[in-house]
Amino acid sequence: MEVQEQAVTNSRLTLLLEKFRRVRIQSVNLCKPLKSEDYVVQPIVDVSPPKWHLAHTTWFFEALVLETYNPDYKVFNSDYGYMFNSYYESVGERVLRPNRGFMTRPTIEDVMDYRRYINEQLEEFILTLNDDETRILDVLEIGLNHEQQHQELLLTDIKYILGHNPLFPVYSTELNATGNLSDTSNFLPVDEGLYEIGHQSNQFCYDNELGVHKVYLHNFEIMDRLVTNGEYLEFVEAGGYQDFQWWYSEAWDWVNQNEIKAPHYWHKVEGDWHSYTLQGFHKLNSSEPVTHISQYEADAFARWKGLRLPTEFEWEIACKLHSPEIANSSNFVEDKNFNPKIQPANNYQFYGDCWEWTNSAYLPYPYFKTDEGALGEYNGKFMINQMVLRGGSCATPRDHIRPTYRNFFNPHLRWQFTGIRLARHT
Amino acid sequence: MEVQEQAVTNSRLTLLLEKFRRVRIQSVNLCKPLKSEDYVVQPIVDVSPPKWHLAHTTWFFEALVLETYNPDYKVFNSDYGYMFNSYYESVGERVLRPNRGFMTRPTIEDVMDYRRYINEQLEEFILTLNDDETRILDVLEIGLNHEQQHQELLLTDIKYILGHNPLFPVYSTELNATGNLSDTSNFLPVDEGLYEIGHQSNQFCYDNELGVHKVYLHNFEIMDRLVTNGEYLEFVEAGGYQDFQWWYSEAWDWVNQNEIKAPHYWHKVEGDWHSYTLQGFHKLNSSEPVTHISQYEADAFARWKGLRLPTEFEWEIACKLHSPEIANSSNFVEDKNFNPKIQPANNYQFYGDCWEWTNSAYLPYPYFKTDEGALGEYNGKFMINQMVLRGGSCATPRDHIRPTYRNFFNPHLRWQFTGIRLARHT
Amino acid sequence: MEVQEQAVTNSRLTLLLEKFRRVRIQSVNLCKPLKSEDYVVQPIVDVSPPKWHLAHTTWFFEALVLETYNPDYKVFNSDYGYMFNSYYESVGERVLRPNRGFMTRPTIEDVMDYRRYINEQLEEFILTLNDDETRILDVLEIGLNHEQQHQELLLTDIKYILGHNPLFPVYSTELNATGNLSDTSNFLPVDEGLYEIGHQSNQFCYDNELGVHKVYLHNFEIMDRLVTNGEYLEFVEAGGYQDFQWWYSEAWDWVNQNEIKAPHYWHKVEGDWHSYTLQGFHKLNSSEPVTHISQYEADAFARWKGLRLPTEFEWEIACKLHSPEIANSSNFVEDKNFNPKIQPANNYQFYGDCWEWTNSAYLPYPYFKTDEGALGEYNGKFMINQMVLRGGSCATPRDHIRPTYRNFFNPHLRWQFTGIRLARHT
Amino acid sequence: MEVQEQAVTNSRLTLLLEKFRRVRIQSVNLCKPLKSEDYVVQPIVDVSPPKWHLAHTTWFFEALVLETYNPDYKVFNSDYGYMFNSYYESVGERVLRPNRGFMTRPTIEDVMDYRRYINEQLEEFILTLNDDETRILDVLEIGLNHEQQHQELLLTDIKYILGHNPLFPVYSTELNATGNLSDTSNFLPVDEGLYEIGHQSNQFCYDNELGVHKVYLHNFEIMDRLVTNGEYLEFVEAGGYQDFQWWYSEAWDWVNQNEIKAPHYWHKVEGDWHSYTLQGFHKLNSSEPVTHISQYEADAFARWKGLRLPTEFEWEIACKLHSPEIANSSNFVEDKNFNPKIQPANNYQFYGDCWEWTNSAYLPYPYFKTDEGALGEYNGKFMINQMVLRGGSCATPRDHIRPTYRNFFNPHLRWQFTGIRLARHT
Repeated sequence: MEVQEQAVTNSRLTLLLEKFRRVRIQSVNLCKPLKSEDYVVQPIVDVSPPKWHLAHTTWFFEALVLETYNPDYKVFNSDYGYMFNSYYESVGERVLRPNRGFMTRPTIEDVMDYRRYINEQLEEFILTLNDDETRILDVLEIGLNHEQQHQELLLTDIKYILGHNPLFPVYSTELNATGNLSDTSNFLPVDEGLYEIGHQSNQFCYDNELGVHKVYLHNFEIMDRLVTNGEYLEFVEAGGYQDFQWWYSEAWDWVNQNEIKAPHYWHKVEGDWHSYTLQGFHKLNSSEPVTHISQYEADAFARWKGLRLPTEFEWEIACKLHSPEIANSSNFVEDKNFNPKIQPANNYQFYGDCWEWTNSAYLPYPYFKTDEGALGEYNGKFMINQMVLRGGSCATPRDHIRPTYRNFFNPHLRWQFTGIRLARHT
Repeated sequence: MEVQEQAVTNSRLTLLLEKFRRVRIQSVNLCKPLKSEDYVVQPIVDVSPPKWHLAHTTWFFEALVLETYNPDYKVFNSDYGYMFNSYYESVGERVLRPNRGFMTRPTIEDVMDYRRYINEQLEEFILTLNDDETRILDVLEIGLNHEQQHQELLLTDIKYILGHNPLFPVYSTELNATGNLSDTSNFLPVDEGLYEIGHQSNQFCYDNELGVHKVYLHNFEIMDRLVTNGEYLEFVEAGGYQDFQWWYSEAWDWVNQNEIKAPHYWHKVEGDWHSYTLQGFHKLNSSEPVTHISQYEADAFARWKGLRLPTEFEWEIACKLHSPEIANSSNFVEDKNFNPKIQPANNYQFYGDCWEWTNSAYLPYPYFKTDEGALGEYNGKFMINQMVLRGGSCATPRDHIRPTYRNFFNPHLRWQFTGIRLARHT
Repeated sequence: MEVQEQAVTNSRLTLLLEKFRRVRIQSVNLCKPLKSEDYVVQPIVDVSPPKWHLAHTTWFFEALVLETYNPDYKVFNSDYGYMFNSYYESVGERVLRPNRGFMTRPTIEDVMDYRRYINEQLEEFILTLNDDETRILDVLEIGLNHEQQHQELLLTDIKYILGHNPLFPVYSTELNATGNLSDTSNFLPVDEGLYEIGHQSNQFCYDNELGVHKVYLHNFEIMDRLVTNGEYLEFVEAGGYQDFQWWYSEAWDWVNQNEIKAPHYWHKVEGDWHSYTLQGFHKLNSSEPVTHISQYEADAFARWKGLRLPTEFEWEIACKLHSPEIANSSNFVEDKNFNPKIQPANNYQFYGDCWEWTNSAYLPYPYFKTDEGALGEYNGKFMINQMVLRGGSCATPRDHIRPTYRNFFNPHLRWQFTGIRLARHT
Repeated sequence: MEVQEQAVTNSRLTLLLEKFRRVRIQSVNLCKPLKSEDYVVQPIVDVSPPKWHLAHTTWFFEALVLETYNPDYKVFNSDYGYMFNSYYESVGERVLRPNRGFMTRPTIEDVMDYRRYINEQLEEFILTLNDDETRILDVLEIGLNHEQQHQELLLTDIKYILGHNPLFPVYSTELNATGNLSDTSNFLPVDEGLYEIGHQSNQFCYDNELGVHKVYLHNFEIMDRLVTNGEYLEFVEAGGYQDFQWWYSEAWDWVNQNEIKAPHYWHKVEGDWHSYTLQGFHKLNSSEPVTHISQYEADAFARWKGLRLPTEFEWEIACKLHSPEIANSSNFVEDKNFNPKIQPANNYQFYGDCWEWTNSAYLPYPYFKTDEGALGEYNGKFMINQMVLRGGSCATPRDHIRPTYRNFFNPHLRWQFTGIRLARHT
């Protein structure tokens, strides 16, 4: 990861301290609707216990800031190091493999104590710093972005835990505000030519966005909104999941081995399609964007429509051209819908609502370099067999997204708020 | 299961009501040291969440007594039926497979409400009955024995959950009272001859103890106490786990595939053997009975000693001859040691402390008949590929055990309080 | 294994030499219908390649006789030791795990050369011996019985390989001679009492038959023939495989996970049941004994009939009482039916046709002792989680079976010629 | 797949007929050193039995040419359709899943009869055609390219089968001709700029090479030969396989789970590295190109060297610029080395020797379209989670390769002749 120099009127320290307080409290707030029991479990390997997210993001500040840069720092609990280090490997014969989902201790109360202790220690430590200590401030900034990423996972993991409980518990009772759906989608054109890809401002970005470089795009156009539940339902009802011709060979195996018949969280009850959202179990809203689909499904749907997914480069240029700024109507975690929503026609939905699967593999940009040390493990080591997603979702913090942001997951995964935007050459 | 007629001075109803109150409160008491988080998880398939035990034993009374015999009964929550029925199979498209260890809801508070409701309903219902309604009283009695069995599992499952946590939480701070170990064990002789096996009194027993029948035993003798940690440690240190000649072929595969090197809960820390007990993480006490071993290990140890495990028939006859009554010093769950202990020489340890592996496969006795309906599933369907254990353990309720009681587990399992008594022909 | 002293008019050496020639040529004869390709594969872990059987039985004589007792012996090929030793564990870094079913070399021609070489060497060596060298003669005798056991496996493994080929190749065109089926089966009674179990003559037997001991049997009776395809078909058609009540809990899982719907080698084609036999693919003959069933299925069928499987002790005593001698009409491998057949009413089928599943676990007899050294591994180490079968089959050599012979397999296995005889208490 | 129009002096039919004879006989010739037993087995899922390759390539002509276009054609054996169709899914209840590696029948003799029959039928049929019947000629041409691809697999699968046999059989005794290795490798430069990617001539190519399009390349340079065993050995000896920092996260799991410590076919015997080649088991030749490595290993090695793998676009442009023609010294299957070799300095090794892993995911080019019908399944459905390889290998037919040819495999696979060429930005 690398951090560009900032031109700020306020001191960088002041801004970081403000963001630190805001981000740290937000993690706790997202857990307010949970019961103690909800914090513990790991139903699938991709989903971590909420308690683990709260502790792991805290451990990041403890290990990479306090233990590294504050010689006076006293460790809260020496066992927490290996329990909450996501990269942990066995360190000695006494230590049991801390299987995340079975660690009932420390309790959530203990973890909250841990958070409070680290918050106090860190604030105290920050007040001893000044703007020249760039490396420490960089690590702090990464820690905050790291915690924001975990907030998104926290929410999708909570959804998984509650959404696979036969009681279908309600997480939020706030109504999911939806706009009016423009009946038909239109296509936004982009002209053939040489474009620049990658992060260029002096704001924070991850190392995988750097290596600004030229990419040649051929004429194409791209949908001006996300694909809806109603549109996707046509594919389901047309037998899309039963016809091998729409699927990659390995996707077809996945469909059959897992008996996939619809997006995750969809259930057919007495002939009607329902879905579980964080507002509970409801009839499917056909105007809302389809979500919780794999890249396999996004690609199969595109083929069935005679279209295709955009590349990440097409997506980035279309976004920069047609939607350079984030609109107020865009739908992020702070808006508390916790679900993608219908947007006004001029919103275009490049930001928020759903992460958009591209047909680009997650690979290094030309001139890509990883950071030194532990922080260098952040992105580069995942650059194989994953596909790029763009644009953020309804679970992303509003100040965490930008046109150059590259998210990535294995193509079969569905527990994130993932959706579809289609493209075609012209 | 079958219930013999009782000759009681008190009404059977009165006794059942008393036992009902005692057994029901005991399940809750065993959970007192737990935190909410501890109630939820299922770290291995054999271990059920404590919450599930509390709810399942309650559901048993709801479904098999109240719903069956009380036409006025109103179900507490219709979803609980499939969530807490251990024999549940899918019932319709909306229902998700209720993976026990990931069901964070209902919370433990909800489950306690469920218990209270069923307790009240059941007490009310019992008061409408009389001693003639034999079938209902039989089912009630089975329900209480069923809950006592689950109390043992509850404790061993709690031990598994806490004992695999890197913090090694303490469940009980009461000291584990231990007597003086007689230095050498002696052998108790039994003469060759024809003996009767099976339950004969009019007290409660399970269906698998019935079918009183004759068995011819050849001369043998049997140890007058359980094998100790110290004795077992000699096997460990002599390389017993590295020498194939002591092991069944499939046991040898099990040792190697699972890298088994010592009993469960044993850990070598800086050269010294420790073990986790419900009192926490301590140095191994070499005088206490070895526990948490598989039948494979019990058998391998016996072969290494040039001895063998007794058959269940030898065990039953030796017990009836040499230890017909349960001594006060015997160690059951009510004694709150939660660990096998050293017994005075005249105790013989046939009851309590550790379930004793025999070399008998769990098979039906001659004339065995299963009960009608759902209760018939209780025992008979497990009579393949399991080995018999006898005598109860430190986690067994004192009034739950008898010389004819047949417990059974797959030979590789270790999470119960299992131990070793050796025998030989003479 | 242990060998009892013989009272022979001929020298033991002469008899062994005669048997040696007869047994060794029989292994080769059983392979005559095979093509080179058939010798190589191992479609499931239980089935070994025919080539491996031919080489492994040869290696047994090479390693345990020639290399052990003949100081002048020159090894045929030093690589064959670990390739054809069934107990092989890794011996050095160069050596690859010789996955039996993928070893295309040595070719079958090479293996035949190996057999010829060992035969010559062994005959030469035998001629240097005399009847006093008991240990060598004992090992030779075990080697011959070992090869006879492998002849049975050879035939069932060949059946598996050919019977899972879509072309259903024919192994033998000889007609499967069948007698007339007595319409109804009768029950043979056995009186309550104390009986002796185990091998008592001075003929060869395995160590697991020794430990002659007393067993008390309660009154019972046992069917006078095997269950037929027609009788078993009634169970299939009555939905026996769809009703959990007939099955052990683990058997029910096995039925569902493997989608078991009928005995192995049964196929329903256009509404009619067919089966593959070594004579090819034919309509099911409803009068012939049902075969290729697991102990699970045998037990489920018995329960459905309101009867039960006999114990191995009941079987042995009933056989000794009602069928002490092997009839000429009995059906063994030398009769070249390669399939169980209908027997005349007075044959009773205790010998040949099908191995009969009992409801006894394979456990040591009282006073059981294993042989010293490698031969001690023969039987004792399998005495867990297996069930006893009695009586031999149509793939057993006629001189290899006796009333005390104990065969054993895991209860789910079906590729042997296994069948059902029912019993009941009276 | 798509076939471009040809400008030929000879009739296209005549050329195809000549190629048909040449390609068909070559498949049989490659199998000459095999024994019947070698044709049968499938040791891992990626390796098919040689017999299957011979039959499947034949079935391709039978099903897609003769059965489709010749109304008079009589099928050779109706069972062969589902036995040798690589896309087979179950067709009715009688049919068993034809597990490729356990199908001992048809024998290799039967398969050779099948090949002869189809060859005769096809030659006869071709003689009835003329150059206007473009679609049939296109399918024929695809069939021949299809068989050439299977010839490469045939050879690598034979190597796998023989190379995992403890006897390490020799396939060819011809000496592996090697040139002199230039001590140091140099880098070939390519200037920044816009380049055209994709197949442009009127010769045959696959559909995945079409969609000629512009790609912008930044300044880079690329090695003028393949990485050698000696260079790779330095990585091995420096502990490259024990240091997580060189590996993708999923590659590190792969290394550890599979205990990977060196390239496939490397063995350390008494301190010295050896490798198995089709000439047998020999000391490692440090000057020859390293082969049988995964993309994971190629990437890890590149990182350890401070360099990187080229993209497929960089590779294609460098090849077209620096090595537009295939040299006589290049090493293909017809040269019978069956192993990559040392090349003269001016050869550059872009063609033959080893398939070169790129760091490009296998994705569609802009404007990519799949062919109609069954032939459309050829390439497009594999465009996920695979990496591109370029340049052909010592197992590729000389007339089968071109600069635009895109091969693809999952990044963990090693049984092909795969190697490394490094690149860097300048």
